[in-house]
Amino acid sequence: MSSVSNLPVLRGLPKGPQIWRKIKAPMEYSHFAQNLQPSAIRAVSKAIHGKKVISFAGGMPHSATFPQAELTALAAEILESRGAEALQYGQTQGYHPLLETIAKYLDGRGVAGVKPENLLIAAGSQQAIDLVARILIDPGDLVLMESPGYPGASGAFLNLGARLEGIPVLADGPDLEALERIVKRERPKFFYVTPNFANPAGVLMSVEKRRHLVEMAERYRFWIVEDDAYGEIMFEGSTADVVPVKAHDHSGCVIYMQTFSKTIAPGLRVAAIAAPVKTTELLETVKQTADMFTSSLTQILVNEFIVRGHFAARLPGLRQVYKSRRDAMEKALREHFPGTRWVTPKGGFFFWLEMPEDTDTQALLAPALESGVAFMPGNCFFVGHFDAAEAARTVRLAYSRESEADIAKGLSELGRLANRLVGAVHG
Amino acid sequence: MSSVSNLPVLRGLPKGPQIWRKIKAPMEYSHFAQNLQPSAIRAVSKAIHGKKVISFAGGMPHSATFPQAELTALAAEILESRGAEALQYGQTQGYHPLLETIAKYLDGRGVAGVKPENLLIAAGSQQAIDLVARILIDPGDLVLMESPGYPGASGAFLNLGARLEGIPVLADGPDLEALERIVKRERPKFFYVTPNFANPAGVLMSVEKRRHLVEMAERYRFWIVEDDAYGEIMFEGSTADVVPVKAHDHSGCVIYMQTFSKTIAPGLRVAAIAAPVKTTELLETVKQTADMFTSSLTQILVNEFIVRGHFAARLPGLRQVYKSRRDAMEKALREHFPGTRWVTPKGGFFFWLEMPEDTDTQALLAPALESGVAFMPGNCFFVGHFDAAEAARTVRLAYSRESEADIAKGLSELGRLANRLVGAVHG
Repeated sequence: MSSVSNLPVLRGLPKGPQIWRKIKAPMEYSHFAQNLQPSAIRAVSKAIHGKKVISFAGGMPHSATFPQAELTALAAEILESRGAEALQYGQTQGYHPLLETIAKYLDGRGVAGVKPENLLIAAGSQQAIDLVARILIDPGDLVLMESPGYPGASGAFLNLGARLEGIPVLADGPDLEALERIVKRERPKFFYVTPNFANPAGVLMSVEKRRHLVEMAERYRFWIVEDDAYGEIMFEGSTADVVPVKAHDHSGCVIYMQTFSKTIAPGLRVAAIAAPVKTTELLETVKQTADMFTSSLTQILVNEFIVRGHFAARLPGLRQVYKSRRDAMEKALREHFPGTRWVTPKGGFFFWLEMPEDTDTQALLAPALESGVAFMPGNCFFVGHFDAAEAARTVRLAYSRESEADIAKGLSELGRLANRLVGAVHG
Repeated sequence: MSSVSNLPVLRGLPKGPQIWRKIKAPMEYSHFAQNLQPSAIRAVSKAIHGKKVISFAGGMPHSATFPQAELTALAAEILESRGAEALQYGQTQGYHPLLETIAKYLDGRGVAGVKPENLLIAAGSQQAIDLVARILIDPGDLVLMESPGYPGASGAFLNLGARLEGIPVLADGPDLEALERIVKRERPKFFYVTPNFANPAGVLMSVEKRRHLVEMAERYRFWIVEDDAYGEIMFEGSTADVVPVKAHDHSGCVIYMQTFSKTIAPGLRVAAIAAPVKTTELLETVKQTADMFTSSLTQILVNEFIVRGHFAARLPGLRQVYKSRRDAMEKALREHFPGTRWVTPKGGFFFWLEMPEDTDTQALLAPALESGVAFMPGNCFFVGHFDAAEAARTVRLAYSRESEADIAKGLSELGRLANRLVGAVHG
């Protein structure tokens, strides 16, 4: 059975007054407002907010990893000695020393030649996605992304009127043959891609595919929008494996984005976009009216945090924390999820599961929430044409937020509920 | 001579590589990107960034007014004791205790009955403007605003494809007769209005006009989008004078926005929107893909700052600082700008000047910048149909950023240059 859906459909959520109520916008709102795509992840996040839940739903960093001591000391120092700058209006493009720091950082990641004028600071990578989408998408434009892919991106693209088509994800990254079949037929505006430990599929794109992708973008003339949220959260292999696609770009076809939400803290809202100068200028002009500039205080905090070596110093420990959690989750999955398949993630925050045939993971959500466990049913990550029955048995589980003990406890419970559900279908 | 211009045209700026270069976007960008409206104010801000200039250009708070000591102590306390919350992802609508605080604050301002579900936190009022514009504007829609009016708003509206028409500003607020002539002919989507010490005109809208405006909006069925950035910066008169238009709204036709950029610090990027629940839900959905949520850290900072009484405590002193500067600027204007007219602002950050006939204030900008004085030529504040010759002799001067001594010094120099320019024209 084939299904087309651009909507993150989600059943089984508690019906709060503001969640999932069909918006009946009167004439006075824009057409845009009447076709807005609400975020399924944000809805689950809202449903469990303030409740005692073991959550595998959002890609939230574990709070205990936040560098509280360093940020406390830095914030006090910055506000005391440079408050006039940290509290004042800043430039739209970003805090210049931070632009220089990020250029240097990217060089270390294998992306050479990035200069401050190639960079723009965004208030988190969701804003980076929105700003890039605004300068690229006209209503009706074809936009490609991995399927399953990140709903924050699909939502932003759909809100601007894009036509979305999904590229299936294999164990070594997106299926470039499927991509080529599409781009041969119709030139897309861009391909949004998450090569490092993709959200939600968790896979790492091979270096060979990265090179091939850039060649295709140059040959068929489309943009690559590369979202590298998880490149630093790597558990095994070599740093060469996570060198961004942008490193292979010699013609200016890659717009690269990088966030500090997973490696420092999401509450600061600092991300960066690296792009050709003309693109950066357009992004700057969009940002002028989008929010004028990103908080000077949080930008200076991030800059000092990196410049003083705290960023580099904390990465090994951070990787160890998430590797242990991945291992704990895999162990629990083996124990409690018979007949379920996955590719072991070598980094990032997520397991992507294919549960046994005929499983309906949406039907699992309500009883799971009732039992105090949250997760994301997989179907809201699919875009364009996809197999609804296949999608219905997928699940995204984040191991990032919970302790190893809670991972074991939550998955034991979730496995019990899932097996009961499958049993009920087959019984 | 009548002229139509939707572009903030500005001559006489130093031609940096990224400023005022005509953007030649290739096909691959969106049409939106090719029609972007660059901000004249941001361009002047960029031109003088890092240079020693007496600036009357931007509406920047005086850095010495920032509550550095209180924010330093609060930031350290919050990061130390509640870092897990302040550094983590937050809800899209905003930090709930801050929503409650703002509801209570608005009640004190005369806007009764606002509940947390009516509120959304934005990353500064520029984002508030953009989010509201996105849920209201379809390309081609008629949008009204004061003329002269705030370019950050006109830019956002034009970027979404609005047709703008300007409502002339009188000494007691917008000309409601002119407004009625337009709305009788064609229903606008909304009227964006700045009743308290308008930017740039500096005038205060009369209470009678506020009531009348709401009646008109109800009768002719358009939204009022009220931007109240300067209501707390009041020098004389009664608090009843600055009660928002929203207080007179009993049918849900007013979308109200309030920022802490002028009263606490712009570097924190915290503003709020108050609107009917359905409107707030739409805004929340737009914000999900725009930037997901506003920094938890800066929201908690603002909330604690208000809850602990620092906000209320600092307003009297803040008003005194800006009143003294207004007085210093008026004194210098009387001395150095013969033949120039203005309405004395009773609050806010700006003087709006009409210089003698045949003055071209744009021609004044380059020599002024060269002499180390910045200001905003008035023509970039006009929207829709306006008299270009009249606009050419207007100027916006912010007295907010500079000390009284520098106000005197800068205006003496600017007056000298202006008089020489007029002399050259008439000589």
